[in-house]
Amino acid sequence: MSVNGVDSELELLRDTTGGASVEALAREHPADVAEVIQTMPALEGAQVLTALSPEAAADALGQMREEHAEQYVAELALDVAASAVHEMAPDDAADLLAELPQAHRDQILAGLDVEDRVQLETLMAYPSTSAGGIMSPDVTALSQDLTVPEAIGALRRIADESEQLYYTYVVDNDNRLAGVLSLHNLLFARGTQRLRDIMITSLVTVPADMNREEVATLFTKYGYLALPVVDADNRLLGIVTVDDVVGVIQDEATEDMHRMVGAGADEHVGSPVRFVLRRRIPWLLVNLGTAFLASSVVGAFESTLQQMTALAVLLPIVAGQAGNTGLQSMAVMIRGIATGETRGRRLTQMLSREVGIGLGTGVLIGLACALVCLFWRGDPWLAAAIGAAMVACMLMATVSGALVPWCMKRLGFDPAQSASIILTTITDVAGFGIFLALGTLLVSMRH
Amino acid sequence: MSVNGVDSELELLRDTTGGASVEALAREHPADVAEVIQTMPALEGAQVLTALSPEAAADALGQMREEHAEQYVAELALDVAASAVHEMAPDDAADLLAELPQAHRDQILAGLDVEDRVQLETLMAYPSTSAGGIMSPDVTALSQDLTVPEAIGALRRIADESEQLYYTYVVDNDNRLAGVLSLHNLLFARGTQRLRDIMITSLVTVPADMNREEVATLFTKYGYLALPVVDADNRLLGIVTVDDVVGVIQDEATEDMHRMVGAGADEHVGSPVRFVLRRRIPWLLVNLGTAFLASSVVGAFESTLQQMTALAVLLPIVAGQAGNTGLQSMAVMIRGIATGETRGRRLTQMLSREVGIGLGTGVLIGLACALVCLFWRGDPWLAAAIGAAMVACMLMATVSGALVPWCMKRLGFDPAQSASIILTTITDVAGFGIFLALGTLLVSMRH
Repeated sequence: MSVNGVDSELELLRDTTGGASVEALAREHPADVAEVIQTMPALEGAQVLTALSPEAAADALGQMREEHAEQYVAELALDVAASAVHEMAPDDAADLLAELPQAHRDQILAGLDVEDRVQLETLMAYPSTSAGGIMSPDVTALSQDLTVPEAIGALRRIADESEQLYYTYVVDNDNRLAGVLSLHNLLFARGTQRLRDIMITSLVTVPADMNREEVATLFTKYGYLALPVVDADNRLLGIVTVDDVVGVIQDEATEDMHRMVGAGADEHVGSPVRFVLRRRIPWLLVNLGTAFLASSVVGAFESTLQQMTALAVLLPIVAGQAGNTGLQSMAVMIRGIATGETRGRRLTQMLSREVGIGLGTGVLIGLACALVCLFWRGDPWLAAAIGAAMVACMLMATVSGALVPWCMKRLGFDPAQSASIILTTITDVAGFGIFLALGTLLVSMRH
Repeated sequence: MSVNGVDSELELLRDTTGGASVEALAREHPADVAEVIQTMPALEGAQVLTALSPEAAADALGQMREEHAEQYVAELALDVAASAVHEMAPDDAADLLAELPQAHRDQILAGLDVEDRVQLETLMAYPSTSAGGIMSPDVTALSQDLTVPEAIGALRRIADESEQLYYTYVVDNDNRLAGVLSLHNLLFARGTQRLRDIMITSLVTVPADMNREEVATLFTKYGYLALPVVDADNRLLGIVTVDDVVGVIQDEATEDMHRMVGAGADEHVGSPVRFVLRRRIPWLLVNLGTAFLASSVVGAFESTLQQMTALAVLLPIVAGQAGNTGLQSMAVMIRGIATGETRGRRLTQMLSREVGIGLGTGVLIGLACALVCLFWRGDPWLAAAIGAAMVACMLMATVSGALVPWCMKRLGFDPAQSASIILTTITDVAGFGIFLALGTLLVSMRH
């Protein structure tokens, strides 16, 4: 299977998918099926899902973002929706159901057997940002009293149902998690040994309420393939695998990037316009408020501007440079927090580094700016004023750029949340204020 | 093992690590050892690495960023460095060696046996951004003619050396990759079968020169655990595992966030100030150039500003709002490209969505802005001008915000590369130009 081959084949399908080529679609990887369906309007997508087998429809829905899957499920007949949900991996099914309106969700749940329903309702009770929200409950635990051949026999019986490729968990007589075995261990053990003799007992577990970002940090730092999720009594609830974590890492990186500029954490390139407006308008209004604040700083110097309009012309330069250099320090800090790089570092250490960066960039850019200004406007005092303002503002920008996400984190917010709006307010107010104060000094010197 | 327990233990170690507590450190996970060492100056870190066993030192170095590891290796005695490199996973060792100055690298390579040296030199020849640069060469291939018990015997012999937990690759008589088996398949096959009968032959392979970001997309989209890396003749060169990919995804997200604002892709919260300045100064100079460009637009309207300083006071508002809303669309597009969400979507479709978003936010924010302006400055015409300028600028900002990364990608650059600098130039020039043009109209109407 060549990757490019699939691409061009899908390209064709995208143009031709009507009833007739659904069989061709069904032969593709569920991720590709999902990709094709996601380019279709809700009704058309629902028709394709209905034409697929319940298993294939479930696989495709499992590969979609929940917000996408939801619009297609809304158009499915109730019995089709229920059998797709029944075939889906329980964690994906729970995420999808959580997106549906209460009434619709209840109708679909009513179409399932009791066991499925209870499992899904339990899963939906975990917040989607917790370990419980990303775990798969399909995890098999074997008794520590089994022999190696008994264990292999037990695994063989459940081989097809379980997505548990990596580890087998072992429980004691009270059904508490006691140890773990890789298939490797099992394959290479002697037949007479019992699981309790060969299992690894020093195992890392994840409480169901641990934040999913913390779970992801455990995986990236220690390189685990899977971790067991347990309740307060150390009973096995489910398993988080590294491929779930890959999705979490992508989502968290997207959320940070979006939050930094005040876009919706859950926006994506296909979100409907109304969805986007609901998320962005509040932050744009906040930004408008802070813009008027910065503007009122300029307003305080209106008589200076009247006497020296050159200041108005140069005004955007100081604030713009300070804003940009602050964003650089902020981006590095936000990613540093996200990837755990800031752990073990002292704030004072990091801030003194920012002072160095702010002074270094400030002096160089300040000099360059003063020189350009000197040649353009021919006024050495104005050039000196803009150069000095630049050094002061860029120094403040790098320090605030690092400090804003750090404070947000300390205050219990997401470090990236609208950090750029806060930072721009600081750099604008400072940039305008410092430059225009120096300008006022200049004007008064000349009179 | 409780995660918080380790944290506080490490906190203690960080304060007390002298010669005496190295044994305590050696008992920790290599990732934790690396974290502790990374807070130390180069010489002190090298002393701790020397005091550890070569295996423990190699494990710790393998867990560090290469830029960090490099400074400690620079302080190690040559024989200590060579035995640590010998013990490291070859892919980590190659990454580390690639960071060292040529002369030092050659000295360390001279201390290794021929086999190690050839392997490392081969690995270093692959660009670090390619599949070859992230693969592990420690991959075992079995002949397709082996029986199941023979294969299990062969795997048992190499069990400890190999990091290959997931799959076993099968080669034909010409040593070309013919199929793949999971341990699962092997464990549950009948003893008389040969590998060629039970292996899966439809397998996805990765050419050694595939970009690592593309490799990561394959993993995230299809949920693979490992993929084989092959040369042009389909001979097995190595294996990329999902935990390598987790690192790639984190790095790519960091690079995008940094590049967007013109910080160094390889910067992190601990980078030395000089390293940071070398990377940021060029982009800040570009930004200074574009700031003067925007400023010259304002300069063209200097006589208007002289007659109506209120325009200078309101100037930052239009450009600031447009810049912010443009950044929102840009962030969503950059992440959309990175996560493969834009695949299968037409540009016209995405841009018409941005038109909707630009008009929606523009009309609402324009109205709010005009109202505030009316009450503050008491000038209905000025309020109308700022409102109208806002709608036009925000519309242009959302469309350019989506278009800039898309064009960068089309032109073969990184979609995020300094996108915010390009965008700010557009929104500043347009914001100042449109608002001041309307302002000039207003001034001329009154005269």
